[in-house]
Amino acid sequence: MSTGSGSYPPLADLPAFECWSLLESAEIARVAWTGPRGVLVVPVNYTISDGALWFRTTPTAEIIRDTSEQWVAVEVDDLDPGTRSGWSVVVRGPIELVDAEDAPDRLAELRVWPPGLRIAYVRVEPGEVTGRRLLPGA
Amino acid sequence: MSTGSGSYPPLADLPAFECWSLLESAEIARVAWTGPRGVLVVPVNYTISDGALWFRTTPTAEIIRDTSEQWVAVEVDDLDPGTRSGWSVVVRGPIELVDAEDAPDRLAELRVWPPGLRIAYVRVEPGEVTGRRLLPGA
Repeated sequence: MSTGSGSYPPLADLPAFECWSLLESAEIARVAWTGPRGVLVVPVNYTISDGALWFRTTPTAEIIRDTSEQWVAVEVDDLDPGTRSGWSVVVRGPIELVDAEDAPDRLAELRVWPPGLRIAYVRVEPGEVTGRRLLPGA
Repeated sequence: MSTGSGSYPPLADLPAFECWSLLESAEIARVAWTGPRGVLVVPVNYTISDGALWFRTTPTAEIIRDTSEQWVAVEVDDLDPGTRSGWSVVVRGPIELVDAEDAPDRLAELRVWPPGLRIAYVRVEPGEVTGRRLLPGA
């Protein structure tokens, strides 16, 4: 298997503007946090607005009980088994519960797939945004 | 929007055997762990063998430096924007570096998408396996 060569390394760090553009293009993120039970991950529908990442959940969700301005990691990707390539962006930063009236319209309008009253409005401050793109191999 | 009713709740916990069957069907997982920098997530190619989840990475990978028999969370999913449905399985348990000769053949043969020498053989003991399926909404 090739280890890659030439001017386009197969695994490349992405600049911030490209990370944000990719974040705008997707709708599912995996949120990871550390709680009393250890590290946990859950998929969420999310949106980008006002320079931050937002999602809605239920007020009784474990992530709401566990985290209070604690840093979380939110991973978004699009990885294609056909070409074995794609990208992954991770937003890390403190999580904050926001009153519904202070949340952006895009969050209120966000189509959340699972049923239930997802009235806990959550903002993730982008303390760190990193991304990598994996180009199709030779 | 419907909050779901009837005998098939739209968001259902999955029994263990179904979680394992779904884990066998996919090839990308997101591994989350807690290190000195806080919680981190990275996508990996993985395989299931001998009742555990395995992946390969580089010996210098941050997860190798950060974790030593520490619990990690590994999330695998298949979520379809078209029908707004799918499933997510999370394996949580201690991570362990295994000598190449003690690793299963499936791990040595695993096709890892990114280039580079991924000679750190990692086993995740399934201390806890949970899954949920989201059925298409009404």
